[in-house]
Amino acid sequence: MNNDKQLANAIRVLAMDAVQQAKSGHPGAPMGMADIATVLWRGYLRHNPANPDWANRDRFVLSNGHGSMLLYALLHLSGYDLSIEDLRQFRQLHSRTPGHPEYGYTPGVETTTGPLGAGIANAVGMAIAEKTLAAQFNRPGFSLVDHYTYCFLGDGCLMEGISHEVCSLAGTHKLGKLIAFWDDNGISIDGEVQGWFTDDTAQRFASYGWQVIASVDGHDPQAIADAIEMAQAVTDKPTLICCQTTIGFGSPNKSGSHDCHGAPLGEDEIKATRKFLDWPYGPFEIPQDVYQGWDSKAQGEELEQQWRGLLSEYACAYPQLAAEFQRRMAGELPADFADKAWAFVQQSQQQMADIASRKASQQSIQAYAGLLPELLGGSADLAGSNLTLWQGAKGLQDQDDGNYLYYGVREFGMSAIMNGIALHGGFIPFGATFLMFMEYARNAVRMSALMGIRNIFVYTHDSIGQGEDGPTHQPVEQLANLRMTPNLSVWRPCDGAETAVAWSCALQRQNGPTALVFSRQTLKAMSRSAEQLAQIEKGGYILRAATAEPQLVLIATGSEVELAKQAAEQLTEQGIAVQLVSMPCTDRFDAQSEEYKTQVLPPHCPKLAIEAAHCDYWYKYVGNTGDIIGMQTFGESAPGADLLRHFGFTTEAVVTRARKLIDQA
Amino acid sequence: MNNDKQLANAIRVLAMDAVQQAKSGHPGAPMGMADIATVLWRGYLRHNPANPDWANRDRFVLSNGHGSMLLYALLHLSGYDLSIEDLRQFRQLHSRTPGHPEYGYTPGVETTTGPLGAGIANAVGMAIAEKTLAAQFNRPGFSLVDHYTYCFLGDGCLMEGISHEVCSLAGTHKLGKLIAFWDDNGISIDGEVQGWFTDDTAQRFASYGWQVIASVDGHDPQAIADAIEMAQAVTDKPTLICCQTTIGFGSPNKSGSHDCHGAPLGEDEIKATRKFLDWPYGPFEIPQDVYQGWDSKAQGEELEQQWRGLLSEYACAYPQLAAEFQRRMAGELPADFADKAWAFVQQSQQQMADIASRKASQQSIQAYAGLLPELLGGSADLAGSNLTLWQGAKGLQDQDDGNYLYYGVREFGMSAIMNGIALHGGFIPFGATFLMFMEYARNAVRMSALMGIRNIFVYTHDSIGQGEDGPTHQPVEQLANLRMTPNLSVWRPCDGAETAVAWSCALQRQNGPTALVFSRQTLKAMSRSAEQLAQIEKGGYILRAATAEPQLVLIATGSEVELAKQAAEQLTEQGIAVQLVSMPCTDRFDAQSEEYKTQVLPPHCPKLAIEAAHCDYWYKYVGNTGDIIGMQTFGESAPGADLLRHFGFTTEAVVTRARKLIDQA
Repeated sequence: MNNDKQLANAIRVLAMDAVQQAKSGHPGAPMGMADIATVLWRGYLRHNPANPDWANRDRFVLSNGHGSMLLYALLHLSGYDLSIEDLRQFRQLHSRTPGHPEYGYTPGVETTTGPLGAGIANAVGMAIAEKTLAAQFNRPGFSLVDHYTYCFLGDGCLMEGISHEVCSLAGTHKLGKLIAFWDDNGISIDGEVQGWFTDDTAQRFASYGWQVIASVDGHDPQAIADAIEMAQAVTDKPTLICCQTTIGFGSPNKSGSHDCHGAPLGEDEIKATRKFLDWPYGPFEIPQDVYQGWDSKAQGEELEQQWRGLLSEYACAYPQLAAEFQRRMAGELPADFADKAWAFVQQSQQQMADIASRKASQQSIQAYAGLLPELLGGSADLAGSNLTLWQGAKGLQDQDDGNYLYYGVREFGMSAIMNGIALHGGFIPFGATFLMFMEYARNAVRMSALMGIRNIFVYTHDSIGQGEDGPTHQPVEQLANLRMTPNLSVWRPCDGAETAVAWSCALQRQNGPTALVFSRQTLKAMSRSAEQLAQIEKGGYILRAATAEPQLVLIATGSEVELAKQAAEQLTEQGIAVQLVSMPCTDRFDAQSEEYKTQVLPPHCPKLAIEAAHCDYWYKYVGNTGDIIGMQTFGESAPGADLLRHFGFTTEAVVTRARKLIDQA
Repeated sequence: MNNDKQLANAIRVLAMDAVQQAKSGHPGAPMGMADIATVLWRGYLRHNPANPDWANRDRFVLSNGHGSMLLYALLHLSGYDLSIEDLRQFRQLHSRTPGHPEYGYTPGVETTTGPLGAGIANAVGMAIAEKTLAAQFNRPGFSLVDHYTYCFLGDGCLMEGISHEVCSLAGTHKLGKLIAFWDDNGISIDGEVQGWFTDDTAQRFASYGWQVIASVDGHDPQAIADAIEMAQAVTDKPTLICCQTTIGFGSPNKSGSHDCHGAPLGEDEIKATRKFLDWPYGPFEIPQDVYQGWDSKAQGEELEQQWRGLLSEYACAYPQLAAEFQRRMAGELPADFADKAWAFVQQSQQQMADIASRKASQQSIQAYAGLLPELLGGSADLAGSNLTLWQGAKGLQDQDDGNYLYYGVREFGMSAIMNGIALHGGFIPFGATFLMFMEYARNAVRMSALMGIRNIFVYTHDSIGQGEDGPTHQPVEQLANLRMTPNLSVWRPCDGAETAVAWSCALQRQNGPTALVFSRQTLKAMSRSAEQLAQIEKGGYILRAATAEPQLVLIATGSEVELAKQAAEQLTEQGIAVQLVSMPCTDRFDAQSEEYKTQVLPPHCPKLAIEAAHCDYWYKYVGNTGDIIGMQTFGESAPGADLLRHFGFTTEAVVTRARKLIDQA
């Protein structure tokens, strides 16, 4: 047996042993792709196990994330801080080896994968980030940013629609440093794929403008190496290497069958596999020469040191650029950002402009983009509706050092690509669509929150106020869905000042994504004291105090704040003490002190919430002694103002319900 | 000007006039596709304007639904019950001409379209339904089911991932009667598509196994007719006709530009267009000879009568089959279904089997599928995990008259195809995936609820109880998201009997879809009195009454019912009067009488809800005097039992929180 084979077999036995020990997991993909991984990681991948954060490392993404043991074995063997004991803890609570690769849990895991197709989308995002960052920072003689993005993917990734969206866009952007390896094993969970997956995948990727290297024997190290060389040689096209493999390679009775896809092989078959692979060692036992063959620490250290030398020279030649590069890769905002943002918030307040919040959002983008060259904007073919373009926006399709991505009609692809861009570093991506079509992208938004990365999702046309496009375009339950997503911050501002604060908070939030939800229709600017202006960032605050001990609290967000204010004024005229609360961001409000929250929402005072979205969310704040004016059905097609009236969002209705509530109290 | 041109121009002027009158809408696509539509509808489409429900009509789907005025103009001109006055009401409240085509609002609208890509998916579903129904019912000499499904689609549909999923599957299933027309106008909302959409679409569809007719002049009636003939001539492949068109054709200054995509042309340009098209008539004025040229009523009546003759002969030859065909197309269950279902519910209760609810679901499928040949099952490559196969399931990839679709890893495509199958009629589709990957399919589920069609979405692995796969596979906020979707019924049963009721209710529900949410892990069977068993269908009921006036109500669903029961028993031992409520279906519970609801959830009694899903949903039932044991963060990777303990789903925790609540009351 040649050395490559033995090194690959180390992956195979670690995978089958760990899955067996955990009594669950997926041995098939790691065993099938072990040879490919061995050639790539030992011969081509430029990385430094001692520093998984090295800025110019090649990125490796396992899009078929259920094969996590492949990645854990690679990280362990090549010298990352991941011990054999960690591998023994595969799929156990608080281990560094969870069932799917989880970003932040394991050194060297570049992104969380598992939901199929998302990994290749992240990889496209990383490759876009690399290409754009290179165009922005590289100078003659200084290829400061210059790395590949490699991605493994399976049949499942290729069946998922997101693979179409992102691979199409990757072709358009000629991402020559993106190299994907398709594990063409003919098997998915339900069995042999020919009953449900008959694409000519090579032809499909050719139609996207990719280089396709077809029919590579995924168990022949030389063929794999040749394919990688061919892939690297073509610099203006992404490459798909079609690797024909046997799932579960090495298992004499289960390889080539879906039996080994997602279940332990069993003790007997493991024994037989050891014999077949001529692997005499025990579970989790790797002989020293295999470790030596795998060890990439010295080479990695050398690669990074060479690059650090380049960076030093670059810093001499371009000190400002070098400082900016390091700032951006560290994810730090300019030191004066917070002050300048606050100045813009104050200015927005002073302007008192009656504009749609999507328009206010555009003004915020205009203000902040000038301060933040790391902003990488975009929209899923709705730039003119989402209002995401600013003066200074430059499309990446026209210039490599641009700052705006025309994503096309690809909401899910956009959002998952944004995740990849954020993970790569050097950028704060934002991307926009209608709030309704967040649904197309929903799982990528969740993945962003799960990974805790800085992404900004801009969602306009946020309610039935959208109007004539009708119920297919009018969100109802979507706001609640976003708000219940752990670690996602969600803003629905009521005017320009709240919008400016929302954007500022989103940009400054370092441990998770933010959804910014804006109206299509014009909203009235609210006047505020300096104290009120400063309280916006608390997520909820008293916008209009009661003249006496409040008998009622009105809570509203976004476009309904103006309505609530009018109702509050009428109720005040009727002699009722009303406290009006604007609640643009419930998650930030929830994080305030009990004292503050009690002041804003006095516990024993009846509360009426008003929001043109699903009612059920608001029981959390009004309890069962309050009331809610919201939506419980789908919308309709009609001018927005007609719809708001039709669905009961009128001053009269608010006043009537408010009086009823007070009478009951 | 030839006659075809004038007939097409009638569409153009109606579209531009209606959009102008509504002051919003999309004139570009109707004007661009008017020639194609004219050739198809006048020369090929077999339909009867007097009876939009004729079972064997050709189906026509406008996947680029923003071009709704194209469809409304076609329906009006060809003789459907849609008046010129209806067209004048375009996009107004309660009109029959909403902004996007809405199923149920307008005679002749086969499906609601607008969210891009969903229409072509529905069309694939309709073509699958046609092919399968034909295989099940046609007999030699009796082509009872024999119609085409035509679909118009735009660049946006092609960019969306869902188009990949469904067109790939359409190729696999050799849907020869599916004919799609791509409006290749080179324009999307952001402008000329070459900056973000560079696919070789012809090559892409060839890779799916479609016949592709490239480079058809979409303004040349003869070329369009030739292409349709070619499409019909190939019977074992779906066909894509690539129609090169000019968006907004006829508008001298705006055609060919995104300016006419989604905004009125303006009075001046409308005048210029009238001149360009040589159309001397006023707004909404159609000359009589044009109406005559379009009128399809006589021809449609004849077509349907011919078919009714065939049906009569068929009924003589195959009386049982004919009756069954008519029953199924009417969407009626067999007369004895309800009784037999109830017998199965009782049997499930008597068995008292401790099984995972996904296993109980499989038993329900087994029981009901024998009664309902219209059941068309499937799973997105998770048959063995979702447990959706039954004895008697036959894969459609093996036999055309089968009853099970291996959808592959295509959750969104599956769900939207199910919508198309349900809309076609003759089937009750169900399709399954993990609850988490409902997110991939989310918008299709919503569209199903919006259309009010009978679909059954099966979601297994419903919580952190899923275990080792970790947070990417563990739902948290998904249940609340489903429950807040208007007109979607959502069940999360706790054992076999509740599962049997859930399936039975889903099958009997005629005006909307149902999501059935099941556990991966084993659940303990609950004993019930006959009265309790009958109350399951109320959605919430007292599973264990208190021995005295209750001091506390415990509410639980699914896997947490067993936990709540154990806690109730401990609390009872401690002398506390506890009422245990099982709440498998909140929407059905909400629909009960106030009296019943008050009995189950006494208003002034403190309540503790327990569910391994996001807390926030439950404030609706526990108010602000209750408490909730649920999730507020993502899950983790570990064995399911470890996770439930880790996240506080233990008897001790429930008892402690319950006592605290009583102490506070």
